[in-house]
Amino acid sequence: MSERVFNFSAGPAVLPIPVLEEIQRDMLVLPGAGASILEISHRGKDFVAVLEDAERQLRDLLAIPNNYKVLFLQGGSRLQFSMVPMNLLRGSGKTADYLLTGSWGKKALDEAVKEGATHVCWDGKPHNYDRLPAAGELQLSDNSAYVHITSNETIEGVQFSTEPDVGDTPLVADLSSDFLSRPVPVERYGLIYACAQKNAGPAGVTVVIIRDDLLALGDKSLPGMLLYRNHSENDSCYNTPPTFGVYVVGLIAKWLQEEIGGLASMAERNQEKAALLYDVIDDSDGFYQGHAARECRSLMNVTFRLPSEDLEKSFLQQATERDLCSLAGHRSVGGIRASIYNAMPRAGVEALRDFMQEFRQAN
Amino acid sequence: MSERVFNFSAGPAVLPIPVLEEIQRDMLVLPGAGASILEISHRGKDFVAVLEDAERQLRDLLAIPNNYKVLFLQGGSRLQFSMVPMNLLRGSGKTADYLLTGSWGKKALDEAVKEGATHVCWDGKPHNYDRLPAAGELQLSDNSAYVHITSNETIEGVQFSTEPDVGDTPLVADLSSDFLSRPVPVERYGLIYACAQKNAGPAGVTVVIIRDDLLALGDKSLPGMLLYRNHSENDSCYNTPPTFGVYVVGLIAKWLQEEIGGLASMAERNQEKAALLYDVIDDSDGFYQGHAARECRSLMNVTFRLPSEDLEKSFLQQATERDLCSLAGHRSVGGIRASIYNAMPRAGVEALRDFMQEFRQAN
Repeated sequence: MSERVFNFSAGPAVLPIPVLEEIQRDMLVLPGAGASILEISHRGKDFVAVLEDAERQLRDLLAIPNNYKVLFLQGGSRLQFSMVPMNLLRGSGKTADYLLTGSWGKKALDEAVKEGATHVCWDGKPHNYDRLPAAGELQLSDNSAYVHITSNETIEGVQFSTEPDVGDTPLVADLSSDFLSRPVPVERYGLIYACAQKNAGPAGVTVVIIRDDLLALGDKSLPGMLLYRNHSENDSCYNTPPTFGVYVVGLIAKWLQEEIGGLASMAERNQEKAALLYDVIDDSDGFYQGHAARECRSLMNVTFRLPSEDLEKSFLQQATERDLCSLAGHRSVGGIRASIYNAMPRAGVEALRDFMQEFRQAN
Repeated sequence: MSERVFNFSAGPAVLPIPVLEEIQRDMLVLPGAGASILEISHRGKDFVAVLEDAERQLRDLLAIPNNYKVLFLQGGSRLQFSMVPMNLLRGSGKTADYLLTGSWGKKALDEAVKEGATHVCWDGKPHNYDRLPAAGELQLSDNSAYVHITSNETIEGVQFSTEPDVGDTPLVADLSSDFLSRPVPVERYGLIYACAQKNAGPAGVTVVIIRDDLLALGDKSLPGMLLYRNHSENDSCYNTPPTFGVYVVGLIAKWLQEEIGGLASMAERNQEKAALLYDVIDDSDGFYQGHAARECRSLMNVTFRLPSEDLEKSFLQQATERDLCSLAGHRSVGGIRASIYNAMPRAGVEALRDFMQEFRQAN
């Protein structure tokens, strides 16, 4: 345990220690199953119980309405970038609207373009993805299949805290990096997807929450694995699901419910943690330069620059020496990024805050 | 440990205890990484070392030639059923040949049909998938893109022990259920794919071994996640790979090398284990009826029937009472199936053999 550092990785990312300890304890024998979670059949009663429990926990945490299905898939958000337009756009004669607030939204658009007509209904790129659209700035298509947003952009550190108004058009959201970090009004979305490796589990499992009516849209000419309906009709066992990942998602949901007290409580803690760092940035007389506008800066990924790249290099090196690790910004933008997901303890954020203050004073 | 049963599941399936123990030991801190294997960035040096080590171990075990790439993907064999024809058939003007020796080959064909012209070059269905083609029975297309085989059919228990002669046409093989159970002459294949959850790891990671020239074929209009080239050019980090799964594959490869002594030694043990059960079947005066012809019966999945379904039910119930678990045949065919992959100890097979003999005598 003492060998553990504070891990600010953007994902895969820090997980709750009680969850890791439970995985460790039960690695050779999942209680009652006679074998490891890694070894049991996805069609046996023991795994079915794990899967059903994970779904029930997610439904409880997010108050998911009954007309939404919860699916556990593979392929990460990258595969969702294609599955969404393959199921909801291809052959529809409609146009998909993409609201771009950062790098990941653009990558989602790049895949949608291959599947049908698309329209960029707002683009933050001209101001370097540092803000969200203001009221009235969205230009939706007349015949929109859906509006796609990225709820939290990990590279730029820009986050929606409420949903944009898209009327009756289905809102599709990549929630990969803030899923389970706060309550979300699921009923305002048509489809939510999230890879697990930020707040919800290990890499290799992706949660999709999809409204019943949208399940009817995909054409059966699609590859079987890419048709949401196949996964829905087979309760996420159309093929062998990523059984270990589903298990860990269930453990994390249980931790959120039993140890944290639910998503409202988690959101409060996350706000407090982020404030510790943003206060240092705001009070640094410009030594630390935050990227995004205050009203949309991310509670998950705190991104900032120092006065020079040399200082950034020095900052990263000294931070690592103090076991404050994986703080480099994404390779496409540089700078510093502190990812402070659910499982990053307040003590880790306080240690980083203290270091930031000391580093500023020393430089 | 004493709570562990003998788990004859067809997959996810039994794993080596030393591997489970190493996972357990290092669950909170991967040595040197300061965090769990579940928590570390796929772009950090610690995971890159895990990935490179897993690849090196596989290359050593299988003597993979340098003109083949090794990829770690998601989506299981089911997604490979589509990725193979999307990359190697779509737009080629050629025909893909499918050699059907069981249920999984047929499912692979069903996906290929969506992507281009296909031809069934041999079909075992008329005799209920109980044998392999004889020499001269294959009818390849004139303009064949590839010939697809399923090296081991888990439902029927039919296995190739050598490669069919397909001339210069690329041989594509679903090796999901016998990958790493025996040496394979990789140079005779154009592409090999295998989900890990039989002999090679947990569900959620799929190994693809692809010859360089075939990497050039996929069109960039394909979804980015489904283009082999993207994964190859990014060393399996085009997106976040299933990091834990890759780690476990590496541990299993190390176990095969260091504890077992390589694939030839593993194959010998697997032959001996299978013989224990087939001898009981062959000596049972027809009480146990094996499914497949002797020369192609599977060393991985021993499938057989009893004189009545009532006796089969009784067999399964009494076996479970002796901690011989998950012996039911696939729901599509019924009967009994003993999956005895690499990690099933000889002691487990001997216990099953003894039970089979006792059950026959009692009935």
